[in-house]
Amino acid sequence: MDLLSIKNPAFLKDLSMEELEKLSEDVRTFLINTLSTKGGHIGPNLGVVELTIALHKCFDSPKDKFIWDVGHQAYVHKILTGRAKDFDTLRQYKGMSGFPKMNESEHDVWETGHSSTSLSAAMGMAVARDLKKEDSFVVPIIGDGALTGGMALEALNHIGDEKTNMIVILNDNEMSIAPNVGALHHVLGRLRTAGKYQWVKDELEMLLKKIPAVGGKMAATAERIKDSLKYLLVSGVFFEELGFTYLGPVDGHNYEDLIEHLNYAKKTEGPVLLHVITKKGKGYSPAEEDKVGTWHGTGPYKIETGAIVKPVNTAPAWSKLVSDTVLKLARKDERIVAITPAMPVGSKLESFAAEFPNRMLDVGIAEQHAVTLAAGLATQKMKPFLAIYSTFLQRAYDQMLHDVCRQNLNVFIGIDRAGLVGADGETHQGVYDISFLRHMPNLVLMMPKDENEGQHMVNTAISYDAGPIAMRFPRGNGLGVPMDEELKCIPIGSWEVLREGSDAAILTFGTTIGMAMSAAEILEKQGISVKVINARFIKPLDEAMLTELFKQQMPILTIEEAVLQGGFGSYVLEYAQEAGFGSTVIDRMGIPDQFVEHGDVDSLLAEIHLTTEEAVKRINSIARKKQKRA
Amino acid sequence: MDLLSIKNPAFLKDLSMEELEKLSEDVRTFLINTLSTKGGHIGPNLGVVELTIALHKCFDSPKDKFIWDVGHQAYVHKILTGRAKDFDTLRQYKGMSGFPKMNESEHDVWETGHSSTSLSAAMGMAVARDLKKEDSFVVPIIGDGALTGGMALEALNHIGDEKTNMIVILNDNEMSIAPNVGALHHVLGRLRTAGKYQWVKDELEMLLKKIPAVGGKMAATAERIKDSLKYLLVSGVFFEELGFTYLGPVDGHNYEDLIEHLNYAKKTEGPVLLHVITKKGKGYSPAEEDKVGTWHGTGPYKIETGAIVKPVNTAPAWSKLVSDTVLKLARKDERIVAITPAMPVGSKLESFAAEFPNRMLDVGIAEQHAVTLAAGLATQKMKPFLAIYSTFLQRAYDQMLHDVCRQNLNVFIGIDRAGLVGADGETHQGVYDISFLRHMPNLVLMMPKDENEGQHMVNTAISYDAGPIAMRFPRGNGLGVPMDEELKCIPIGSWEVLREGSDAAILTFGTTIGMAMSAAEILEKQGISVKVINARFIKPLDEAMLTELFKQQMPILTIEEAVLQGGFGSYVLEYAQEAGFGSTVIDRMGIPDQFVEHGDVDSLLAEIHLTTEEAVKRINSIARKKQKRA
Repeated sequence: MDLLSIKNPAFLKDLSMEELEKLSEDVRTFLINTLSTKGGHIGPNLGVVELTIALHKCFDSPKDKFIWDVGHQAYVHKILTGRAKDFDTLRQYKGMSGFPKMNESEHDVWETGHSSTSLSAAMGMAVARDLKKEDSFVVPIIGDGALTGGMALEALNHIGDEKTNMIVILNDNEMSIAPNVGALHHVLGRLRTAGKYQWVKDELEMLLKKIPAVGGKMAATAERIKDSLKYLLVSGVFFEELGFTYLGPVDGHNYEDLIEHLNYAKKTEGPVLLHVITKKGKGYSPAEEDKVGTWHGTGPYKIETGAIVKPVNTAPAWSKLVSDTVLKLARKDERIVAITPAMPVGSKLESFAAEFPNRMLDVGIAEQHAVTLAAGLATQKMKPFLAIYSTFLQRAYDQMLHDVCRQNLNVFIGIDRAGLVGADGETHQGVYDISFLRHMPNLVLMMPKDENEGQHMVNTAISYDAGPIAMRFPRGNGLGVPMDEELKCIPIGSWEVLREGSDAAILTFGTTIGMAMSAAEILEKQGISVKVINARFIKPLDEAMLTELFKQQMPILTIEEAVLQGGFGSYVLEYAQEAGFGSTVIDRMGIPDQFVEHGDVDSLLAEIHLTTEEAVKRINSIARKKQKRA
Repeated sequence: MDLLSIKNPAFLKDLSMEELEKLSEDVRTFLINTLSTKGGHIGPNLGVVELTIALHKCFDSPKDKFIWDVGHQAYVHKILTGRAKDFDTLRQYKGMSGFPKMNESEHDVWETGHSSTSLSAAMGMAVARDLKKEDSFVVPIIGDGALTGGMALEALNHIGDEKTNMIVILNDNEMSIAPNVGALHHVLGRLRTAGKYQWVKDELEMLLKKIPAVGGKMAATAERIKDSLKYLLVSGVFFEELGFTYLGPVDGHNYEDLIEHLNYAKKTEGPVLLHVITKKGKGYSPAEEDKVGTWHGTGPYKIETGAIVKPVNTAPAWSKLVSDTVLKLARKDERIVAITPAMPVGSKLESFAAEFPNRMLDVGIAEQHAVTLAAGLATQKMKPFLAIYSTFLQRAYDQMLHDVCRQNLNVFIGIDRAGLVGADGETHQGVYDISFLRHMPNLVLMMPKDENEGQHMVNTAISYDAGPIAMRFPRGNGLGVPMDEELKCIPIGSWEVLREGSDAAILTFGTTIGMAMSAAEILEKQGISVKVINARFIKPLDEAMLTELFKQQMPILTIEEAVLQGGFGSYVLEYAQEAGFGSTVIDRMGIPDQFVEHGDVDSLLAEIHLTTEEAVKRINSIARKKQKRA
């Protein structure tokens, strides 16, 4: 059928099984074609085609509420709710988001991006429904990976206790982003392989009837066996223990099974967990056969071959540079242990895992545990390296403060995807870490200007033994600069003058250094001489260099690809005030107090005026102030 | 025995059962006597007397590592490790901490304060031990309440998966701080009441032998019954499912049982969970009979009667003022739902719970879930009020940012215990919230000057419907000011001039307003006229009033009982720069970039120079700058 003609999911009610099957095919073809040019989360979405269609057939959205955990698997939901036409602009600037968005559709009742929020949100919606005496279904759809997030477990505990009506769909595809880890994964594995064991239960009932009648203790024991039936492996004892009715496992690509179970769940009182087995990438063989997560989210690809169209970039990827440098050092330094919360592929830790399987811990989606685990290792004189995305480190704020920084432990945090990340949008922008880390005592926070400095910083971090140290680095690739053979240590808190100048100074670090250098060149032609400083240590500041600038009454512009509130520029203001140079002319460029949506990074930077042109304008203004004073 | 003579726990190895019993008595008497004058966490410590002694008898600290979750139950451990003599200074300024501290003893291998960190830390220590091929036991001791924290569940999942050798002591006292909630609590309840059911297992084995021999399917079924034995309710199936060997439940006040089980645990491969049942307050009847948590942590008391010596203060407690005002509004406004993460007593929500049991959600120790649950409620046009301590809100940073602020939901956060909290010390100081909340777009953050303004602010927050709003308030009691009958709304972002002046202005809020007013009076006598402004909105700033001050070239001193880095004063600096008044003379007082230890608040304030005298000195300095310029 013409997917572009779909206005809302009502049409599904009348479709026959055959028509549903046909619709699945159409949706898959649409996804495979569209995403081949746009990129996106193809694997997760191909895996939930039948599940999403069955959900919209059995329930009545938006009265019934679907809450998509993580949210990158909501493409089919978007198609069924009238948004097929918008896939042309998927994840593009001002285009359709890759995640649920309330302002796109009334069918999107909760926005996600980070994992493991769906159950708590659903509990809130269910409590509201019950208090308002409304009649609707609340249906969170959560993956097996997201279930290991502490917040999801907190919610399971609460929901099971309150016995709130809710239908939790456990979308079990045996991998979250990378193959899953954790004991819960084994629980699911046992449930999965158990298959359809209703017959076992029946046989057991028969068997019990054959047990000779006995009195006293023995009878009690026999009763106990009966009671224990429901605790049989096949009955989802883990979830039953928590107060849920466990249903499944059901084949997530079989409409009959899905619809039967969904309708049964609707009739069940209290919280239900329906265990659905799906296959990531279903229906597109390159994605189906993916073992490592390449097809979880990808750029454009050739449909016929599944060859991913790689942007031509010979510079090393930042994640790989950092992980490989850690690996190199780990060969000589037995203290080094690498930790990832479910991102071994994204963080390029495959080589490390292959070479040092015992010294590599993938803890699953469990950022809080990851950070405090690192702290525990550090108490024993190990040197943990935690590879974590900036946006996910937000989940472990208290662990950073209370466990790592307060105890001043030698943990090395590699903060990946720092700065604007682009297509993933506002839930994933790595622009808060400076503001939420800067006020933590004892922490050293740095960012390299290029991959060569990056490798030296990794070495610096590993050598550093006076407390926690973090290095932020951006998404994507380095600049392609020559790499030194020998690793060096960079003095903690030392900045670097990249360009001399006398009328004004730009203090910046990481991705915005190029912008500063370009601005300085343009300004030179305008007769303004600009000093550019690589402020590679965000904390501590290079107080000596700063004081020198203050003494010279040099107007200063700070530039950061991070939020201005409480950020690096704010730190410079604070220090100027504390050091008695509060009258220094200082201007700050960065991200204003608003969330930055998805889109290509250049468009986003332009929107928030984080550009070379703006830097030129600002310097023109502050340099003139100096001239006036002088 | 003379507890003061204990140097380390080695003496325990030779004690007989009788001597152990005698030691328990001595320890209890010591605790009851000492804490009657000092106050402290008496209930939790009386509950773990035998458990702690048995642990130190069976293990070999510090080679074997005890990790006390939360940590306020480590008093007996402190006595056994040579610190009885230091109880004179318990929780006092420069005295012994109420929590484990590495700098106090080599037997304190991990510092706590916040709950649910022990398992992650223990995993780090166990991994380090195994990598270093060392031979020691890692023994985290975690309460049933702390087990519901998401981070602990993340760790259970990881430990069970890795099969790491570790002995987890589950100290189950049927309440954490308030009576426990959550499905896990029921799991434990069933295990607890099951008692000693080894005989059931034996009988079952016998019974199975009587089942007639059958072939095919039936045989498989019989096998399956045998397999399912271990999934019997009494065997701790929940923990077994996660990969732990479950032992217990064992009576935590019976040495024979404890020692037998601990020794068995030592011989067991892989992770063990030993379920120990203890009674909070054991051996001191007022504490034993406590149903609501009064004796969890208390001030001084009369030993004979158990009467708690209350400081004379007729002003309302802040927590009670806030909760009672919310309750008053809830009578007219059905949208209001109260949420607490395990602190119904601390947050004084008992009356709310009694009157609106359906509209009061105690989610247990689960701060992340609490915040996102509130967000879920808000999507359904409810008005959730989350009562949470400042220090515990740290656990939900990402939920505040990603779920509440990003979706701009109408959640009201009551941030209790904001500012220095005193005796609990550095893990509990509520001094980071401004710095970690200020950079979240859409959030309104305020703090009242007294309880009358406090009640109006609560009303303001409930009436506000443009997004999230938070009100911070301090530990302890109000000022005893007269209370208005009628509740008002305070215009968002409006400050209030408390005292006119022309030479300088102090901007401050909450607890430091008194300090500012005193300083202004002293300065007046010195001929310096100081304006004092109640900067009750920390975000947004009162830009009109600030601009007016800037235009008058008024030197400004900001004072906050919170960290300076990225705090309120920093915000004023940022705004001055952005608004084009960067040359304004601004000075800032607050907490420097260091952790503030325990002690009475006045001593702490003096140590960090947050005093009237310092304010006088600072104003003297900046007012003179103005005079110079003028």
